[in-house]
Amino acid sequence: MTDERHIISVVVENKAGVLARIAGLFSSRGYNIDSLAVGETEDPQLSRITLVTSGDEAVIEQIRKQLNRLIDVIRVHEFEGEDFVERDLMLLKVNAPPGKRGEIMQIVDVFRGKIVDVGAKHLMVELSGPESKINAMIDLLRPFGIKEMVRSGRIALTRGVKQI
Amino acid sequence: MTDERHIISVVVENKAGVLARIAGLFSSRGYNIDSLAVGETEDPQLSRITLVTSGDEAVIEQIRKQLNRLIDVIRVHEFEGEDFVERDLMLLKVNAPPGKRGEIMQIVDVFRGKIVDVGAKHLMVELSGPESKINAMIDLLRPFGIKEMVRSGRIALTRGVKQI
Repeated sequence: MTDERHIISVVVENKAGVLARIAGLFSSRGYNIDSLAVGETEDPQLSRITLVTSGDEAVIEQIRKQLNRLIDVIRVHEFEGEDFVERDLMLLKVNAPPGKRGEIMQIVDVFRGKIVDVGAKHLMVELSGPESKINAMIDLLRPFGIKEMVRSGRIALTRGVKQI
Repeated sequence: MTDERHIISVVVENKAGVLARIAGLFSSRGYNIDSLAVGETEDPQLSRITLVTSGDEAVIEQIRKQLNRLIDVIRVHEFEGEDFVERDLMLLKVNAPPGKRGEIMQIVDVFRGKIVDVGAKHLMVELSGPESKINAMIDLLRPFGIKEMVRSGRIALTRGVKQI
């Protein structure tokens, strides 16, 4: 279990090329990217890239160092221990003929998901939460037939206000 | 209003370097990326990259063509018209001294957000929804003092089942 998943947050200047440099760094060194999300922050000039990668401690330490050296990277933070909240977002389209619809809606309700579209033969479900919760709902819906699925990749914030 | 925001979904093979090639394409041609999310799909061998970009019709057409030419890109789809559901996910830490907490919790409740962490002087809020809804809540919370914010970037799925 040395190759664990690590969640790393990279705050960057909103400038052309910074994502390409980060993705290029991972690609050229053979570092794995399990998920990646780029979005706005509290400062309109900055974006936050949250990425999930796996590797042993030495690899993660290398990744942190290399990221810190890149142009337009403001800060790098690795989420460790239990001291953070992590969430993922999913939209999923599942086969739902009328006879199955009630059963599917019950599952979605238990997970506090939302039905965001209803068709003659399918439902579209929105669910946000920790990865384990999203995976658990997917496992329960899989037998009905999943037509399409999209996930945002992980985002995370530390608890408390010590960061920054 | 020729430079509108476009949401493009790119289904790719889960292989090293594909994200670097896509980010490099945007960077080298000067195309803008407003947000980008990479996550798993219904097929474990494929990932779906949802990206939001802006430009006139000619630029978007170029982007579509260039993406289709890249190795490991399986398909490219642009979401157009009203025929899709788009969502974004946000975690936000806001100043919340005890005297203000009730007011903030009311706002979060109206937007059907979730309080996911409570500290002596802050609250952490999780909200998913269309971009306009997320932006509206941010505007209402800004006067209290936003400490930190992270967003996933947009994800989207077409309504109905006509797409693959």
